[in-house]
Amino acid sequence: MRWTNIGITTTKEAPVEAELISHQLLLRAAYIKKMSQGIFVYGHLALRVIRNLENIIRQELDKANAVEISMPMVQSADLWKSTGRWDKMGDTMLRFKNRTQQEFCLGPTHEEVVTEYIKPFIKSYKNLPLNFYQIQTKYRDEIRPRFGLMRGREFIMKDGYSFDTSAESAQKSYDSMYKVYQNIFNRLGVSYRIVQADTGDIGGNQSHEFHLLAESGEDILLVSDTSDFAANSEICKTLSFLEKQNFAKSEDKDKESKKDLTKLDQKLLSTPNIKSIKDLSKFLNLKKDKLVKTLFFNIKTTQVEKKEVKQNIEKIVVLVRGDHDINTYKLKNFFKALEVSLLTEEEVIALTGANPGSCGPINLKEKIKIYADFSIEKMINYTVGANKNDYHIQNVNNSDFICEGFFDFRLAVAGDLSPDGKGRLVEYKGIEAGHIFYLGTTYSKKLKAEFLDSNGKTCPVEMGCYGLGVSRLVQAIVEQSHDENGIIWPMILAPYKVHICLLDPKDEEISKLCDDIYKDLISKGVSVLLDDRKERPGFKFKDADLLGMPLRLTFGARSLKEGGVELVERKTQEKQLIKLNEVVETILKKVKQ
Amino acid sequence: MRWTNIGITTTKEAPVEAELISHQLLLRAAYIKKMSQGIFVYGHLALRVIRNLENIIRQELDKANAVEISMPMVQSADLWKSTGRWDKMGDTMLRFKNRTQQEFCLGPTHEEVVTEYIKPFIKSYKNLPLNFYQIQTKYRDEIRPRFGLMRGREFIMKDGYSFDTSAESAQKSYDSMYKVYQNIFNRLGVSYRIVQADTGDIGGNQSHEFHLLAESGEDILLVSDTSDFAANSEICKTLSFLEKQNFAKSEDKDKESKKDLTKLDQKLLSTPNIKSIKDLSKFLNLKKDKLVKTLFFNIKTTQVEKKEVKQNIEKIVVLVRGDHDINTYKLKNFFKALEVSLLTEEEVIALTGANPGSCGPINLKEKIKIYADFSIEKMINYTVGANKNDYHIQNVNNSDFICEGFFDFRLAVAGDLSPDGKGRLVEYKGIEAGHIFYLGTTYSKKLKAEFLDSNGKTCPVEMGCYGLGVSRLVQAIVEQSHDENGIIWPMILAPYKVHICLLDPKDEEISKLCDDIYKDLISKGVSVLLDDRKERPGFKFKDADLLGMPLRLTFGARSLKEGGVELVERKTQEKQLIKLNEVVETILKKVKQ
Repeated sequence: MRWTNIGITTTKEAPVEAELISHQLLLRAAYIKKMSQGIFVYGHLALRVIRNLENIIRQELDKANAVEISMPMVQSADLWKSTGRWDKMGDTMLRFKNRTQQEFCLGPTHEEVVTEYIKPFIKSYKNLPLNFYQIQTKYRDEIRPRFGLMRGREFIMKDGYSFDTSAESAQKSYDSMYKVYQNIFNRLGVSYRIVQADTGDIGGNQSHEFHLLAESGEDILLVSDTSDFAANSEICKTLSFLEKQNFAKSEDKDKESKKDLTKLDQKLLSTPNIKSIKDLSKFLNLKKDKLVKTLFFNIKTTQVEKKEVKQNIEKIVVLVRGDHDINTYKLKNFFKALEVSLLTEEEVIALTGANPGSCGPINLKEKIKIYADFSIEKMINYTVGANKNDYHIQNVNNSDFICEGFFDFRLAVAGDLSPDGKGRLVEYKGIEAGHIFYLGTTYSKKLKAEFLDSNGKTCPVEMGCYGLGVSRLVQAIVEQSHDENGIIWPMILAPYKVHICLLDPKDEEISKLCDDIYKDLISKGVSVLLDDRKERPGFKFKDADLLGMPLRLTFGARSLKEGGVELVERKTQEKQLIKLNEVVETILKKVKQ
Repeated sequence: MRWTNIGITTTKEAPVEAELISHQLLLRAAYIKKMSQGIFVYGHLALRVIRNLENIIRQELDKANAVEISMPMVQSADLWKSTGRWDKMGDTMLRFKNRTQQEFCLGPTHEEVVTEYIKPFIKSYKNLPLNFYQIQTKYRDEIRPRFGLMRGREFIMKDGYSFDTSAESAQKSYDSMYKVYQNIFNRLGVSYRIVQADTGDIGGNQSHEFHLLAESGEDILLVSDTSDFAANSEICKTLSFLEKQNFAKSEDKDKESKKDLTKLDQKLLSTPNIKSIKDLSKFLNLKKDKLVKTLFFNIKTTQVEKKEVKQNIEKIVVLVRGDHDINTYKLKNFFKALEVSLLTEEEVIALTGANPGSCGPINLKEKIKIYADFSIEKMINYTVGANKNDYHIQNVNNSDFICEGFFDFRLAVAGDLSPDGKGRLVEYKGIEAGHIFYLGTTYSKKLKAEFLDSNGKTCPVEMGCYGLGVSRLVQAIVEQSHDENGIIWPMILAPYKVHICLLDPKDEEISKLCDDIYKDLISKGVSVLLDDRKERPGFKFKDADLLGMPLRLTFGARSLKEGGVELVERKTQEKQLIKLNEVVETILKKVKQ
């Protein structure tokens, strides 16, 4: 491909809104162009990377007998209503009416469609197992699209679905897809981690995420320093009882805990202008773990009453230790909630009479259920807000208010004991690129996707689903693989393996030599980008580094006088002079490495 | 690929709504499954056909230096408002608001997006020409989706766009794409015709359609029996003056025309229950060409007044000869209208006082402009409706009412003189598969897609656009290539080139032989579908015929006893027994033909 055909021009600067280096590089090198918030044109080079990635995905899935199909992006509301997800999905699902006022959505995922698709094919257990996938443009109406292709609204995704006769067979399908994902990530040569994950809106019993490790990753992965335990912090359990045991062993803490056995008198404390736990800890000269945070949430759930779906919102209080943070995913799962959100300041004031910084579980104005994190169960004589502005109460105990119980609500963090009891947790940051779910019969029961087993009994089919963010992965790889000059594509993904800089396009002899090798390489199956622009050498080299093809060949008068052309490896910046008659052979060797 | 992995089951019957044989066959063979009106799942086999077709398209476009990119399907309203098409596109464009109430549409075409994309790249004439294309899922909210993939709402399309510095260079780009399309259709081996066509909502100065010929085609193509003139009947001009000359030559008509020179008295005629031209012709014993039809239209146009777009609807009357039909495309283009629609019966009664069957241009209740087709210019003493139920008026002449003028409004038909004056028109029916447009600077001016020419002058870029219906073409090919037993895929498009029927999957020896050849063929690059189901031979053969792979191999005890396997060619049904050790070689030869 000649540069003048692609027509792109690179830029020195990226727009300020591009925070991530990968986003900046993809914009500067004109791989992508933003058309709306979270919506991009994939230029020719980006499309070639995507195609290379898609082919790797296809090859690995095909080896595992998964079968490619293509499902519609525009999906009827009726299907989503059958599974109850039309109401459950929230505003991320883009809904619209067509010209005849029928309701549709732009498919954010395809569990309903694929299940409807396979229904006529699975009359008997003999028709199973089946495993379908597609690579498709999807749309999710993200509230804050950002980070380029990382969190776009319109994006390319591979989604796969397995159908089995039994939980045992379904687990085999799940394991097979787990292995396929490992193979894909291994072939890409990326640094990644597999963690246990939340099943979210998809539902189901088991799920793993595949994360590319990167400092800019939005997800926190907690990994045991001793065992193979690894989980997304969203779902990582905490083991308060284990921690307690450990806690008791330390001598220093031991004394404190003995002292705590005496129950002290409650005392109203003036805490002027103290609005955060940090400030309170400083003001009282107390460690944060002697304080308790009081948080107020709206818990939105749906209930089916007389075949009508009704939404219910309940206000609740959750207590967590001062040094802990709440994990809203745990809250959402605990209450089987549609949505969990903090009350606004106004709502908190209405409930408590005080600003959020001065609230506590005692003397609330309305009757409201109070839940607490495990870590509070054994706490005594702690400090909470007094529900009076600028006041707190000291020496509060659990018996001073009615608590519904103690549960695992807090965010696990690095340093916590690993939930499997082996070692402590270490933190990584990750970019979620793949997510697999064992769904069980959640969808098949609702959509009546049933088969006759060998005894003639009607059974719902066991399902799994397997997502892989194609466009996101492309950018995540750039996030892992670049230097100060630009992108460094792995050979397997590079849009073109060789980038030729023709320094003297006006010199007929040099152009002819260059053109011959360009064509020879292409005829031997090597993809080549030929920079045939009338630009200065330095300009061309900079662009070559920015675009990031693995190998650069330079055709210029100087090196040709020395009898050859210069070959530069993008990653190492190693240079060598190659004799003209050895160029093709050398490139072929390097490309096959 | 093993059948049990694809998992499909075929059906004997297609739903009654499937009118076209191609639609029936694709449904029965489970190539596609309808999910909503005009929205389908492409099963594995259909997807493979689509991919094969896409690859042919890519290869031909790449040869012509067109560059593949991928543009978003979700497009911002702002962009469409810049060209005025947000208002012009009508209800076929699906519009919606996202969660932040911004307006978007599902891209029915991409002139705006691609022009915005290339703007930063074309600062100078040196950056041109450029030619981009994409193959993408598009959405058009068809009012009546039908005929399966022929007129779907969600469909796959290749759309391409060229950018040039001058009209001359743009014409070269247009011609090059014309040639590319010819190459594609030639490679597919289909029977097709290229015709001049309407530019419709896309706009521009020149356009050609590529039609697959088929009895079920929705378009009527008019082709000269003498010259290379060919046009879609939508835009095919009529040459009334030439026809008149010809008319005068015929002896019979000659007499009549002399008689017509005498102007006769008007006469009100009772025509009870006569509502159609056909009935009137019979009743009066007059040829239809002595009658005039009076039609009433709403002409919807937009006007920009003080920077606001206002819609205007005007009622008009159009007269055409009794044996002619009105061409609404001509009407739409003549009035530069957004939309042209017949008045309802109620509206006609309000205007005329009579039912549509008794209307005419004389004594209308309201002042309304009257336009007439060319063919009426020289008519005298003709018959029209009297604007009184069950009455007509005879001996009417053009001087009896105020006519705005005579224009080319009628539908050309087979038998008409060719508009180039050479020969007469012959009629074909076609399925539109490709459409190319020379756009000029319509879009670039509005979107300010400009470059500096060699004199430093700012000029709008010259554009062309080139569409090809990928999913439609797949079905159109089935419409051309099938027999009573099923689909007959051309080798170049077949999802699998070889279909193996393994008749005795329980027989280990036969299964082993079959498996060896299956794997050998695949390793040599031949795609094979292996029917490994436990079904009767007859059932398998029927399915093989229905699915339509070009070559069928049968592994069964009977033929193996005779020392070989049976090879059947789908198209000719020719059978031959091939020795086991010659199977692979024979197939390789046939596949390469």
